[in-house]
Amino acid sequence: MLRSIATVSVSGTLVEKLAAIRAAGFDGVEIFENDLLYFDGSPADIRKRCADLGLQIMLFQPFRDFEGVSKERLAQNLNRAKRKFDLMHELGTDLVLVCSNVNANVIADDALIVDQLGELASLAEREGVRVGFEALAWGKYVNSYRHAWRLVDAVNHPSLGLILDSFHTLSIDDPVDPIADIPGDRIVFVQIADAPLHKMDVLEWSRHYRCFPGQGDLDVARFADRVLATGYQGPFSLEIFNDGFRAAPTAATAADGYRSLLYLEEQAAHQRTGQSAQPLFTPPAPPAHSGFQFIEFAVDSTSAPRLAQRFAEAGFHTAGKHRSKDVTLYQQGDASIVLNAETDSFASEFFHRHGLSLCASAFQVDDAARVFERATSFGYAPFSGRVGPNERVVPGVRAPDGSLHYFVDARPDEPTLYEADFVLDAQANGQPAGPGDLTRIDHVCLDLPADTLDTWVLYFKAVFGFEAESAWLLPDPYGLVRSRAVRSADGSVRIVLNASVDGRTSTAQSLHIYRGSGLNHVAFVTDDIFAAVEQLRARDVRLLRIPLNYYDDLEARYDFADDMIARMKDAHVLYDRDAQGGEFFHVYTEQMDGRFFLEVVQRKGGYDGYGAVNAPVRLAAQAQRKHG
Amino acid sequence: MLRSIATVSVSGTLVEKLAAIRAAGFDGVEIFENDLLYFDGSPADIRKRCADLGLQIMLFQPFRDFEGVSKERLAQNLNRAKRKFDLMHELGTDLVLVCSNVNANVIADDALIVDQLGELASLAEREGVRVGFEALAWGKYVNSYRHAWRLVDAVNHPSLGLILDSFHTLSIDDPVDPIADIPGDRIVFVQIADAPLHKMDVLEWSRHYRCFPGQGDLDVARFADRVLATGYQGPFSLEIFNDGFRAAPTAATAADGYRSLLYLEEQAAHQRTGQSAQPLFTPPAPPAHSGFQFIEFAVDSTSAPRLAQRFAEAGFHTAGKHRSKDVTLYQQGDASIVLNAETDSFASEFFHRHGLSLCASAFQVDDAARVFERATSFGYAPFSGRVGPNERVVPGVRAPDGSLHYFVDARPDEPTLYEADFVLDAQANGQPAGPGDLTRIDHVCLDLPADTLDTWVLYFKAVFGFEAESAWLLPDPYGLVRSRAVRSADGSVRIVLNASVDGRTSTAQSLHIYRGSGLNHVAFVTDDIFAAVEQLRARDVRLLRIPLNYYDDLEARYDFADDMIARMKDAHVLYDRDAQGGEFFHVYTEQMDGRFFLEVVQRKGGYDGYGAVNAPVRLAAQAQRKHG
Repeated sequence: MLRSIATVSVSGTLVEKLAAIRAAGFDGVEIFENDLLYFDGSPADIRKRCADLGLQIMLFQPFRDFEGVSKERLAQNLNRAKRKFDLMHELGTDLVLVCSNVNANVIADDALIVDQLGELASLAEREGVRVGFEALAWGKYVNSYRHAWRLVDAVNHPSLGLILDSFHTLSIDDPVDPIADIPGDRIVFVQIADAPLHKMDVLEWSRHYRCFPGQGDLDVARFADRVLATGYQGPFSLEIFNDGFRAAPTAATAADGYRSLLYLEEQAAHQRTGQSAQPLFTPPAPPAHSGFQFIEFAVDSTSAPRLAQRFAEAGFHTAGKHRSKDVTLYQQGDASIVLNAETDSFASEFFHRHGLSLCASAFQVDDAARVFERATSFGYAPFSGRVGPNERVVPGVRAPDGSLHYFVDARPDEPTLYEADFVLDAQANGQPAGPGDLTRIDHVCLDLPADTLDTWVLYFKAVFGFEAESAWLLPDPYGLVRSRAVRSADGSVRIVLNASVDGRTSTAQSLHIYRGSGLNHVAFVTDDIFAAVEQLRARDVRLLRIPLNYYDDLEARYDFADDMIARMKDAHVLYDRDAQGGEFFHVYTEQMDGRFFLEVVQRKGGYDGYGAVNAPVRLAAQAQRKHG
Repeated sequence: MLRSIATVSVSGTLVEKLAAIRAAGFDGVEIFENDLLYFDGSPADIRKRCADLGLQIMLFQPFRDFEGVSKERLAQNLNRAKRKFDLMHELGTDLVLVCSNVNANVIADDALIVDQLGELASLAEREGVRVGFEALAWGKYVNSYRHAWRLVDAVNHPSLGLILDSFHTLSIDDPVDPIADIPGDRIVFVQIADAPLHKMDVLEWSRHYRCFPGQGDLDVARFADRVLATGYQGPFSLEIFNDGFRAAPTAATAADGYRSLLYLEEQAAHQRTGQSAQPLFTPPAPPAHSGFQFIEFAVDSTSAPRLAQRFAEAGFHTAGKHRSKDVTLYQQGDASIVLNAETDSFASEFFHRHGLSLCASAFQVDDAARVFERATSFGYAPFSGRVGPNERVVPGVRAPDGSLHYFVDARPDEPTLYEADFVLDAQANGQPAGPGDLTRIDHVCLDLPADTLDTWVLYFKAVFGFEAESAWLLPDPYGLVRSRAVRSADGSVRIVLNASVDGRTSTAQSLHIYRGSGLNHVAFVTDDIFAAVEQLRARDVRLLRIPLNYYDDLEARYDFADDMIARMKDAHVLYDRDAQGGEFFHVYTEQMDGRFFLEVVQRKGGYDGYGAVNAPVRLAAQAQRKHG
C-alpha cells in the first residue's frame, strides 16, 4: 500500500512540510494548491525537491466549481483547467482532484454535467494528465460518492476517474457498502480522514476538526475495507484540516499521520470482507492485558521519603529493595509502586528534566516480546536500560512524553519480575486484603500538553490495542480541560488523558510544575469505600473536602437508602450512577505540592466510567484550596 | 435599569467571582447552581457574602426538566423543587429559573403542562417564592418564548412569570416584535447574551460561543428594545457561556460585562419604538470621525534613528520638533507619525515595558471633550500627561493594552495641535502630493493576546462608536490568527485586530517581542500603487517578495488588461476584487526586527475590505523569510 499525505495536513513552510513528510516514511504527497501559491520558487523547484527526497507527487488539488455551469463559464473553466494542467507538468504529477461545485447557481442536470466532465476528460487526455472527481459532502448538487460515481461512469473516459474521501462519505452517514461495487480501477485516488463527532455544519466540521484515522469517531476502517474490496491499487492519502495540527510541530504530526495509516491498514485487514489486491501492514497482534504491573516514580533523596510516606499513609508497605539499584518497591494488594532514586539512570535523567514525576509504567501482557515488536513496527522508540546480573530483561518503549512503558508477561516457570529483580520482604508480603484495603490500580490519569492528546490516543490504540472513549470537556474554575479515557477491552488497564485547553487550570499549572510530563492522579480500587476512608483517616491522610451543597443536590436527584448521604458527606465521597444503575463511589486525597493526588474508587453493578460528572466538583474544590 | 450577571459568566472560584462582579458595578447576580454546589460553605454564607458586598441575589438557576412529565415524575419533581425552594430561602432569593424540558420523552400536551406549571406555582406561593419559566432554544417541546408565554399566561398565577433570554430567541431567528405584546409585569427576568454567527447545533453554540452584547452578531439591541417596550421593570442579566471567558481574568471579564450592558442600553434607547418604564444609561453621543491625527511610537535613543530612517525611506519628512519634549513629528500628506523619546514620560514607561512599540494614537473627532466624557462614562480610564506651556490639552484614555488614545478636535480659531505643540519646519511642509506619495493612514493593525479580542471590540464600539466586521480566521504556517476589523461609519478610521490562536505564529511571536502590546503593521493610502512602489524602491525599501505562483493563480482566476499581471508580479503587489468589482492593490515592506512592517494600499471602485484573502500569502512569505 502506498502511503501519502496532503501538504495541508501539517504545519510549516512547504520546505519544512516536505522534509517532515519524507522523514515520517510517506511514499508521496498531495500538493495542496495554497502551499504551491505560497511557495517562493517554481513548481519545478518543488518537483526537484520532492525527487531529491524520494517523494512522489501523487496529486495536485483542489480544482473547484467546474461542473454544472453555463456555456460561457465552461469555456473559462476549461481555460483555467488548461493552466493548471500546465502547472502539473512542471510539478511532475499527472493527477488533479476536481471537487464538486459548491456554488448556489450550479445547474442540477446530470446529462449536462456528464458532457462537461467529458470535455474536461478530453482536454486532460490531450494534455496527458488525469482528472479525479470527488463529491464534497457540502457540494451544492453532487454531494455523495454514489452520485459522483454515476457521473464518472457515464462519462466513461480513461482520463476521468473517481476520488473517494472517507470524511465526505462518513460525515453525512452515506452508506459505505456500495463502494465495493465500484470497479477498483476506476477509483484513481482515496483520501482518508477521521473526525470526532460534532453537531455542526459539515463544512465547518471538515475545515477545523478532521483528524488522523483512529483519533476520531468515524468508522474509517470499514470505509477502507470497502475500498480495498474493489481491488483499488492506489494510495491511501491523509487529507486533514485540523486547527491543532496547523500549530503543532511538523515532524511529530507527520509521524503520527504515517502511524495512523499503518493502524488503519491493520484495522481494515481485520474487517476484510472482500479481496485486497494490495499488501497491507500486518504488525504482531496487540496484547491481551491483565492490569498494571507497577508504576514508577523518578525521585531524588529529598523527595523519595516524602513520597514514600504518602504511599505508606495510603496503606502501602515496603515490599522490597532492588538487587542492584536504588529502587524501592511498595505494595498493597496487587497495586505496586516503584520509587526510583538510582543516580546515573533513566530515572535520574527523567527527574532532572521533570522533577518528581511518573517516569515509567509497566503493563502485564500475554507476550511482552510481541508487544515490543508491535510498538517498534509502528515506529515508536524502543528502550533498553541498564540491567544487573540475574535481573530480567524487560522490553520497553518510549511513551509520547518520553517516559517508559514496560511490558511484562507471566512466566510460570521463572521467578516473577519482583523475585528476579528485588530482595523481597517476605514478612510484609502475602497478607490477605482486609476491608477497605486497596486491591489494585483502577486507572492512572495523566496531565498532557494541549496539542498532544491526539498523539497519545493514537499511541495507546496502536501499541496497546486500547479503545478510546469520546472526549469530555471539564470546566475547571480557570478554564477548560479536555479529557479522554483509553482502556483495554477487559477494563483491566485504564488511563485517563487530561489536556488543558487553557493556561491557568489546575491541570495546566501541574504540567508546568512537571515541565511537560505529568501525573494528574492514580486511582486505586477498594471493595469498601467507607472502610477505605476510615483507614486513610486513621493514618492521617488529608482528604479533599467536598462542599456540603454537593450532597444536598445528590439527595434531590437520587433516592438513597437510610444514612447513605450522611455517610458520603462525612467521608467526602463523590457519587455517580449510570443509566443501568451501576454505581461509582470515589474519594480524593489532597494534592501533593499543588499537583498530583490519589483517588480511591469503588465500582458497583458494572459501572464503567470515571465519575466525569464529578470532575468539576473536584477541580473547584482544589482551586478553592489554593485561591479561596 | 438594574444590571446583573450570572456567576457562570466569569472565571474563578465563587468568592472571586462575586468580588469581581461587585467591583465591576453590577447590582446583582444570578447564582448558577454549579457554583453553589462547588462552594465550600453554606447557601447562607453566600447570602452573607453578597449582602456584605452590596450585591443582590436576583435569581437561582437552573431548575431543569420539570414540565410535561408523568404523574410519578411530577411528584418527584415537586419534591425536588421543594428542596431547591428551601435552599433559596437560605440563599436569600425568591426567584428561580425553570427552563423547558429537554428530555426526549417529554409529554407534548399544553393542557397537561399548564396543570403541572400550575402545581409548581402553587407550591412556590406556599413557599413564598416565585418561578420564572424560560424556553430553551433546544427544548424538546417548548422551545420558543411565545410558546412559553402561552403556557404561563394560561396558568395565570401570580407566582409564575416568564423569563426571556436574547440568545434563545435570536439564535433560532424567533421574531422579536411579539415580545412587545407581553405585559411587562408578567416578565419576571430577562437574560442577555450575544454570539458570533456559527452554523452549528444551537446547544453547542450556546454552551461555548456566547459573548457580551456588542461582541457578537445578534441583534440584541432590538431584543432589548422590545422588552423595554413591554414596561418590564426588572434587571437585564448577562448569562454567558464562553470557553474564553472561563479562562480569562475574572475582573477584566466582569468589567467588560458591565460595560456591555451600558452599551446595550444606549443601543436599545436608539431603537426605542415603545415606552421604556426604566431610566437607561445615556452617555454623550459617539464622535464623528475624520481620520487618524497621528500614531506615536515609544522609542529610545537607539531605536529612534532606526525607525526614523524606515519612515524616511517610506517618504516621510521631518515636519517638526516638539516644543518641550524629545518628540519628533514625521509627515507625508495627511499621515503623521510621532516618535517619542522623552525620558521620564508615559512613552518612556511604555518603552520600558514593551520596547519599541506603538504607545499612542490620536484620532480626529468632532468634539474631543465629549468622546472623553463618553469613554469615562463607560468606565475606561482617563489619562492626563505632562503638558508644557502653550501646549494644547489633549484628552486621552487608556486603550485595553495600556497605550493611549487621544482625541483631537478641529478648532478653527486656534492654532492646530501641531502648531501649538511643535516647532514646525515650514519649508518641508505643505508640498502637494506627487504620484505614488502616501496621502494618509488607511488602517492600523494591532497584535493582541488571544483572550483580549472581545475586549477590544467592545472598547472600540463603546468609546468610538465603531462598527465591527465578522472575524476572519487566517492560516499562518504555524497556526491560526483570528482577525477582526473595526471602523468608523465613514471608513476614515480603520483598525484591524489580530489575535493569534496559536503560540508559534508570526503574530504570536511579534506579540512576544513586544511583551504584550503590539503593532502588526500600518497601512498608508496611495492613489497609484505602482508609482508608490517605484518611489519606495528608489529609496531602497525592501518589499516583501510575493511568490510568482500567486500571480499564475490570479491570472487563472481573473481577466486582467494588458500587462497588469506582469506589473503586479514585478512590484510584489497583491490583489483582491469584491463582488461589486471594487479592487484592492497592496504591497508590504519586510518586517523590522521580525515584527512590524508597513503596507501601502490603493482602493478602487469602493473596495471596502483589507485583502484578507491575501493575508495567508503574506504570512507564508514572512515565515519563509525566517524559516526557509
